[in-house]
Amino acid sequence: MPDEPLYFQSHVFVCTNLRPAGHKRGCCAEKDSEKLRDYMKVRAKELGVKGTRINSAGCLDRCEYGPVLVIYPEGIWYSYHDRADIDEIIDTHLVKGERVERLLLQPQDRRRDRPDP
Amino acid sequence: MPDEPLYFQSHVFVCTNLRPAGHKRGCCAEKDSEKLRDYMKVRAKELGVKGTRINSAGCLDRCEYGPVLVIYPEGIWYSYHDRADIDEIIDTHLVKGERVERLLLQPQDRRRDRPDP
Repeated sequence: MPDEPLYFQSHVFVCTNLRPAGHKRGCCAEKDSEKLRDYMKVRAKELGVKGTRINSAGCLDRCEYGPVLVIYPEGIWYSYHDRADIDEIIDTHLVKGERVERLLLQPQDRRRDRPDP
Repeated sequence: MPDEPLYFQSHVFVCTNLRPAGHKRGCCAEKDSEKLRDYMKVRAKELGVKGTRINSAGCLDRCEYGPVLVIYPEGIWYSYHDRADIDEIIDTHLVKGERVERLLLQPQDRRRDRPDP
């Protein structure tokens, strides 16, 4: 449970890790995560979403499901692919406080070669 | 409140943002945050700390108090300066689940030029 008061009510971490081409796990950066992070920052600002910080993060270790982002303090992970997905995460999760069920990562979505984090 | 189950029981984000020399807000990278992040990762692994991920993050926007890190889902922020501080955060916060009071950032520790996040 979070300690109060939280500095950011929603803190979004968008993986922008870049690996060399051909790496067996892939990486989020090769799937446009940097551009989509930029879009998310701009769009959230345009919409006046308050108390939210959208950050870049290094490898979040769920590369196989990337691009991924995680939102705290809820600890909710999403796999997104385009601007429409980002729009839905902003509107449904950040604004309404609900979940975008179709984009949720599941607990069993773990790295396949080393299942325990 | 976090949704259960959490993928990582403790998710640490260490700011490693680098700004050009002389920037008025400074940056965490110029205060050795990359080396200290590396140390934290190695030391947590050596100690066998479970369920924890130590990540790099882009600018966390509390540069004036840097280097800073934040631990979720608790939403606890620390200002640290050396390996002894990192050791204490690992032992007290990550292992024992307590708080390192002397290193805590306070709610009023906001960026001075734009107080509302």
